[in-house]
Amino acid sequence: MAEKLSDTVIQEQVDQLGSWRLQGNMISKIFQFSSFPAAVAFVTHVAFLAEAAGHHPDVDIRYNKVMLVLTTHDAGGLTQKDFSLAAQVDEILG
Amino acid sequence: MAEKLSDTVIQEQVDQLGSWRLQGNMISKIFQFSSFPAAVAFVTHVAFLAEAAGHHPDVDIRYNKVMLVLTTHDAGGLTQKDFSLAAQVDEILG
Repeated sequence: MAEKLSDTVIQEQVDQLGSWRLQGNMISKIFQFSSFPAAVAFVTHVAFLAEAAGHHPDVDIRYNKVMLVLTTHDAGGLTQKDFSLAAQVDEILG
Repeated sequence: MAEKLSDTVIQEQVDQLGSWRLQGNMISKIFQFSSFPAAVAFVTHVAFLAEAAGHHPDVDIRYNKVMLVLTTHDAGGLTQKDFSLAAQVDEILG
């Protein structure tokens, strides 16, 4: 099982990602697209990565905007799994 | 533009749908699936209907659960577009 990261390591990882927001025990990011279909296509792409990683973000779709929220419920906070998936998601958009 | 429905008509339509919850100016429903991929596949199917209708629900994915929320922002409340899309969505699941 992934271990909960220390506050210091979490801050380092958040800084490294650059564009995710730290909110308590979670990291989140809002992605904006040109259209609703583009937003849904992105969610589908994220879903493939999430399922492969066995780690599933909360996903909120608001027309052309998608909010992803990551945390590791089993560990009671942020783990390496969250930051790995966040980095993979960012790679989708190049 | 679709016109906002009266409270009486709204209640009739909600009763007719049977499984959507009326919350103020919105109707919502939570759909549960056997897996995350099944939930995402459902969202993709909903997205095709939504795009064809030019009417887009708010979508929240929580692992194997999907919450859809419908309202017509332009009309400031519920219109026939919301109930039509809700009925179409219900048909996905047969």
